[in-house]
Amino acid sequence: MALSKNKLKYIRSLELKKNRKAEQVFLAEGPKLVGDLWGHFPCRLLAGTSEWLARHPAMQAGEVVEVSEEELARASLLKTPQQVLAVFEQREEDVDLSVVEHSLCLALDGVQDPGNLGTIVRLADWFGIEHLFCSLQTADIYNPKAIQATMGGIARVKVHYQPLDTLLQSLHPGVPVYGTFLGGDNLYAQPLSTNGLIVMGNEGNGISKEVEKCINRRLYIPPYPSGRETTESLNVAIATAIVCAEFRRQASAHEGRTV
Amino acid sequence: MALSKNKLKYIRSLELKKNRKAEQVFLAEGPKLVGDLWGHFPCRLLAGTSEWLARHPAMQAGEVVEVSEEELARASLLKTPQQVLAVFEQREEDVDLSVVEHSLCLALDGVQDPGNLGTIVRLADWFGIEHLFCSLQTADIYNPKAIQATMGGIARVKVHYQPLDTLLQSLHPGVPVYGTFLGGDNLYAQPLSTNGLIVMGNEGNGISKEVEKCINRRLYIPPYPSGRETTESLNVAIATAIVCAEFRRQASAHEGRTV
Repeated sequence: MALSKNKLKYIRSLELKKNRKAEQVFLAEGPKLVGDLWGHFPCRLLAGTSEWLARHPAMQAGEVVEVSEEELARASLLKTPQQVLAVFEQREEDVDLSVVEHSLCLALDGVQDPGNLGTIVRLADWFGIEHLFCSLQTADIYNPKAIQATMGGIARVKVHYQPLDTLLQSLHPGVPVYGTFLGGDNLYAQPLSTNGLIVMGNEGNGISKEVEKCINRRLYIPPYPSGRETTESLNVAIATAIVCAEFRRQASAHEGRTV
Repeated sequence: MALSKNKLKYIRSLELKKNRKAEQVFLAEGPKLVGDLWGHFPCRLLAGTSEWLARHPAMQAGEVVEVSEEELARASLLKTPQQVLAVFEQREEDVDLSVVEHSLCLALDGVQDPGNLGTIVRLADWFGIEHLFCSLQTADIYNPKAIQATMGGIARVKVHYQPLDTLLQSLHPGVPVYGTFLGGDNLYAQPLSTNGLIVMGNEGNGISKEVEKCINRRLYIPPYPSGRETTESLNVAIATAIVCAEFRRQASAHEGRTV
């Protein structure tokens, strides 16, 4: 069965959030990503080349369509289409805020770029951070660019959209809430917790005033050499990675000492 | 003077490497970036709105053209054009390899994505890494997307293109050459040097076989919890940031102890 004009239009329509939201689905492309997401999200539509379909008899659910390379190229949002694409159903993520008391979680306050968002999901997965809270101004994790950038991390990391100020106000007052600021305390000069929330801000404007009020531990990534004049900040995904790596380094060192 | 058709065509032609190379120039957009690069690279052409030009009387060199918002939008490669764009001359970077013996440098072995490359220049600037060596298969730093992603870091970080295997073979044998590998040594479990070269590989394939032969210290960024199964790697810019941050954390801690 070839790809009908309607089906093609449907797939390409998923570039827009309103269409993804109406259908409660998202698009993933390429054998690696489709394979990683398989079993984590119900598949509604699978479009693969005959070779790919022949090699993956077990990965067929929802509507399965065999496509030529040309058809795949027309449906794909990638520059270099890769053998298969799939439309998966979005996952409803219920969450109990006590996860923030018991584990280290991330919050994004208006991260705009889907690539940054997906990259943050990927590194959260690497560092065993299971919950990512996003303000309603943050990019949509189901944006195809975000999904591709997660490199499958979205199968394990749960992303929740909600107003961050409300979330922060409902946390137990003893829970550490970290944010990075110019003039904060040197990331490397203090003990970091194994629970609580790390808040990262918008690419241009950082953390919003409302959210800043709820932050009780202010951090700063020191440039090198320390105190050197640098007019630049770091990319938000890069800063998130450096901060998360240091939290996990300290936790590992501590576990090593106490074993 | 308005933007002629030829000038418009010239600016847009700089999206392609062959045109940038023929002209030995590159494009930068937006008041922040143009301001940061000003004085570091000779300016050949400046196209700004009347408001921008009026507010920056000192920043006029090369050919200066006043453009309407509509003209700027036609010339711009950005989704949201911003008041000004400039064509700067590329810089010839001579380098003595002894910099690798005396300071910490980075090398990229086939990083493909211009955004990743620019982001790496930005973080190198943050961490005071002055020299970035790129294999000939690495993306072009003068690609407009790379330049925008440096956020001005290209003013301070010097980027050199040369075959990495030749470069590595000509280094003094005692110089540490680091690379990240699955199965390498835990980044956090060993002393890291303040000189030498950190090599980062291609997004999909990592470090090439030829270059791998010259690496004498193999590192690994541990996921958390340690030993946890994770199918994913990290984005190359993210991995670069985590590695550089740890080198600089150790150096700062050591300086702190010895002061």
